[in-house]
Amino acid sequence: MNRPSEQSPAGGLRARLHTIIFEADTPAGKAFDVALLWAIVFSVVAVMLESVTQVRVRHGVLLHTAEWVFTGIFAVEYVLRLVAVRKPLDYARSFFGIVDLLALLPSFLSVVFPGSQTLLVVRVLRLLRVFRILKLGHLLGQAEVLMTALRASRPKIIVFLGTVLSIDVIMGAVMYMVEGEANGFDSIPRSMYWAIVTMTTVGFGDITPKTVMGQFLASILMVMGYGIIAVPTGIVSVELAAATRQRPDTQACPGCGVQGHDLDARYCKQCGTALDWTHSSSQGETG
Amino acid sequence: MNRPSEQSPAGGLRARLHTIIFEADTPAGKAFDVALLWAIVFSVVAVMLESVTQVRVRHGVLLHTAEWVFTGIFAVEYVLRLVAVRKPLDYARSFFGIVDLLALLPSFLSVVFPGSQTLLVVRVLRLLRVFRILKLGHLLGQAEVLMTALRASRPKIIVFLGTVLSIDVIMGAVMYMVEGEANGFDSIPRSMYWAIVTMTTVGFGDITPKTVMGQFLASILMVMGYGIIAVPTGIVSVELAAATRQRPDTQACPGCGVQGHDLDARYCKQCGTALDWTHSSSQGETG
Amino acid sequence: MNRPSEQSPAGGLRARLHTIIFEADTPAGKAFDVALLWAIVFSVVAVMLESVTQVRVRHGVLLHTAEWVFTGIFAVEYVLRLVAVRKPLDYARSFFGIVDLLALLPSFLSVVFPGSQTLLVVRVLRLLRVFRILKLGHLLGQAEVLMTALRASRPKIIVFLGTVLSIDVIMGAVMYMVEGEANGFDSIPRSMYWAIVTMTTVGFGDITPKTVMGQFLASILMVMGYGIIAVPTGIVSVELAAATRQRPDTQACPGCGVQGHDLDARYCKQCGTALDWTHSSSQGETG
Amino acid sequence: MNRPSEQSPAGGLRARLHTIIFEADTPAGKAFDVALLWAIVFSVVAVMLESVTQVRVRHGVLLHTAEWVFTGIFAVEYVLRLVAVRKPLDYARSFFGIVDLLALLPSFLSVVFPGSQTLLVVRVLRLLRVFRILKLGHLLGQAEVLMTALRASRPKIIVFLGTVLSIDVIMGAVMYMVEGEANGFDSIPRSMYWAIVTMTTVGFGDITPKTVMGQFLASILMVMGYGIIAVPTGIVSVELAAATRQRPDTQACPGCGVQGHDLDARYCKQCGTALDWTHSSSQGETG
Repeated sequence: MNRPSEQSPAGGLRARLHTIIFEADTPAGKAFDVALLWAIVFSVVAVMLESVTQVRVRHGVLLHTAEWVFTGIFAVEYVLRLVAVRKPLDYARSFFGIVDLLALLPSFLSVVFPGSQTLLVVRVLRLLRVFRILKLGHLLGQAEVLMTALRASRPKIIVFLGTVLSIDVIMGAVMYMVEGEANGFDSIPRSMYWAIVTMTTVGFGDITPKTVMGQFLASILMVMGYGIIAVPTGIVSVELAAATRQRPDTQACPGCGVQGHDLDARYCKQCGTALDWTHSSSQGETG
Repeated sequence: MNRPSEQSPAGGLRARLHTIIFEADTPAGKAFDVALLWAIVFSVVAVMLESVTQVRVRHGVLLHTAEWVFTGIFAVEYVLRLVAVRKPLDYARSFFGIVDLLALLPSFLSVVFPGSQTLLVVRVLRLLRVFRILKLGHLLGQAEVLMTALRASRPKIIVFLGTVLSIDVIMGAVMYMVEGEANGFDSIPRSMYWAIVTMTTVGFGDITPKTVMGQFLASILMVMGYGIIAVPTGIVSVELAAATRQRPDTQACPGCGVQGHDLDARYCKQCGTALDWTHSSSQGETG
Repeated sequence: MNRPSEQSPAGGLRARLHTIIFEADTPAGKAFDVALLWAIVFSVVAVMLESVTQVRVRHGVLLHTAEWVFTGIFAVEYVLRLVAVRKPLDYARSFFGIVDLLALLPSFLSVVFPGSQTLLVVRVLRLLRVFRILKLGHLLGQAEVLMTALRASRPKIIVFLGTVLSIDVIMGAVMYMVEGEANGFDSIPRSMYWAIVTMTTVGFGDITPKTVMGQFLASILMVMGYGIIAVPTGIVSVELAAATRQRPDTQACPGCGVQGHDLDARYCKQCGTALDWTHSSSQGETG
Repeated sequence: MNRPSEQSPAGGLRARLHTIIFEADTPAGKAFDVALLWAIVFSVVAVMLESVTQVRVRHGVLLHTAEWVFTGIFAVEYVLRLVAVRKPLDYARSFFGIVDLLALLPSFLSVVFPGSQTLLVVRVLRLLRVFRILKLGHLLGQAEVLMTALRASRPKIIVFLGTVLSIDVIMGAVMYMVEGEANGFDSIPRSMYWAIVTMTTVGFGDITPKTVMGQFLASILMVMGYGIIAVPTGIVSVELAAATRQRPDTQACPGCGVQGHDLDARYCKQCGTALDWTHSSSQGETG
């Protein structure tokens, strides 16, 4: 991020390091990013495999070693990143700096608390960086549209979640009274868990109403949940349509050549020439 | 709501009470609302915790006391509200007046019918008031858009629910005949409960078809339910898009300064000047 | 439907009968329709209740009697309908004529095959007629919009269902081989039933994959099903938006008073006057 | 595909074969396609039935014979196809050539590995060809619209699936730690399977959280999954609306008779005449 301008030997080394680690334009930088990508993937897969009993019994030592090797690699990488940037503290405090650190800690933690190496899956978040570095601009643009739509939907979604939560609390209490402990609804929080399982149409079936009254109430809750699915879907659809519409198009104005008109624009926003979307010529004085 | 104009001592006291209890603009009113918000939240949490056996065994007396303390506070508040307004009967009959009363009754009811204090979760509805008082106008505007969309969707949704209910009744009877009591479909109402569980894609699995014919019919019902999800979603999406479009924008007309144009307006609705949405100037004679 | 023009005594009686039975404008016709509505509802409820063992044991005779009384009433009604219309065969062959007959048969059938009276729930379809007769034009208009949207979506939905069915067949066969009879996937049809239960996100849990490979394939199927939900929803949303847009609005043109403009019309389709949707006046020559 | 132009006797035979097998315009070609369609359907049904134990026990020999008969027919057809085309290798390498071959292999494979004949259901893919040949152009146009919409949605859907997968990995690891092997979460991959089952709202219920913490986390995951359903639905809706809009309409321009205007076009794209969608005349100078 900070390109060093002075050319002291140390600064030159830092500049080279910075190019390799933080930039993906040079062959070295690209190779580094790809190697890092695979290291992260293998590291996460190793953590997953270690959790499978049969695999752990047979290949436990190998996986344990691999885990520490990856931790070593990532630790070195973390130090190099600190060295490569001008203001190490800024990096350490940034989102990716914290994720990079969090991706190391569980290994050391597992010495004291066995089992905590499972937390190493947090390394999956590191893939976000590679995603950014590999210049998947195409996808990032799309992610941005999604983000814009979701941000615009936020107030509506908060109102929606508030409503869902209120229904959940009341329904949980009612089912606790109607069904009671005998049928698995043995506390209001557990009934609320059941109400969420039901409203979201997940329906595990670990707790189910047994009484006629309970089944009747459950039916109402289900149909409500079914209808309620419509609401966030509608919200996101509408906002996504709006966000998509706002993205500039690549069509150039036939009069002045300016790009970036809205998708539904019919006149150039700079010179007022009618835009002819089907052909590049504009022979019609529409109106 | 009714600001007293005469300045008798009693009227002055009532005016002060009214300001504190019903208005959130003054520091005292704001403090009252925030305190009330927390009291409601703690009260509901206490009811929930009391329903958990382990907690009740250990902290039963504490929670029971807390419950009565909160009931006392809310009873005093209710009386103060009656005193603070000019026409107590109007308040007592209003939606919030009834909710406030309902939030008190279960405690007293529980003396006669033990266990009915669970109904105290109805207090959650009281949060709606605080929501309104705290001037979350931003969210309220969004809630209004949602409400407009749902109101506009109502006739379509009634037709839709009628169709779903008819399918449910017929499918319930057919499955009762096909599967029979041996497989859990031991009455038409229970089969209808199963049909709703299936159509809404909840799928508890407490009752499932065992015969080949039953599984075939269930498959058809599921695919139908799957397709039917599309309908309310489509309804709400369309109405939500319409409701969103009707909300005035903040863009002012460059000609006369009037605001509140529809999102798709291209000419000012008051003076006919072309609206240039990207810049505030209007140099183009579009058409 | 056929108003008799000759005034023979028999014709006059038929005309009166026709008015009462088929039209809802006169007080007698209205009363007849409302009575019929309730008779159908009670009749269906009686069938439902009879299927509940406890109720049947206690009130079996009563319900059985009620069933035959309703069958008698509906049989008389059916004969009267045949008498009231000019061409009885046309009525008997129409959709409602067949439903009316089907609503009678199960009672007589149950004499030979006990249990077949459950089929009486087909009477629920008779409610459609009352719905039509009671002039719920408001709702019918909405039902029409829904129907238009679904009809327009049909070709897309056929393609969609074909795709779903192909995935289902192949996935059913693959899971049958991967999981095998030991884990409940004991034939391809049963595996296909499971695949539909999974793809539609119903998820009963009566059959579940146990092997790692089976769970992996199931995960893919689930994510696919999850994404596939989007398709019919999108289809119906788009067609519903189109169908809604085509419905005429009640806004009259300020120039010539003509109604029925499309929702997005900005100029009267008869005289070209600009439509001012916010006010009823049209002071702006927009463009 | 390659119409032979030379008229040698062999070429003439090949031309006739080509017409029958690859074209559906002639009566012979149509008859061949319909016969093939039914042969495929019966063949797939036979494979399905053979997997049902009761049917296999009783009709095993018949089904086994049918399987080999169908395989024989399809083998002959495959050879004829190779003969009928000019460049047999091009056909053999094409999508349909490979499917045709794959539809034969499992029968021969089953001699060595009993049970592999289940793979014969791959024949279902052969139906795609008949679908294409029978000139269901109407449906194909719709399939194209769906495909366009899905292709346009792809980048957004990749971003979406990446997010879902990340949540899945992290949630799987967290639940593995919180619930542990005792409650069925006996490895990270299995926990991930559970997380997918939950997020997609399938909810089998074969693995369910038992601890309070696990149920709380599951509730959050469910509500998230519930909200996340909205995203792909919104994506597909928006793209489908765009793809539908781009399809030409059959309305002809009243000025020059040109067809294929966009649905929202108000002026002819060739001559600029205002399009009057409600009537075929254009008396209004709109703006």
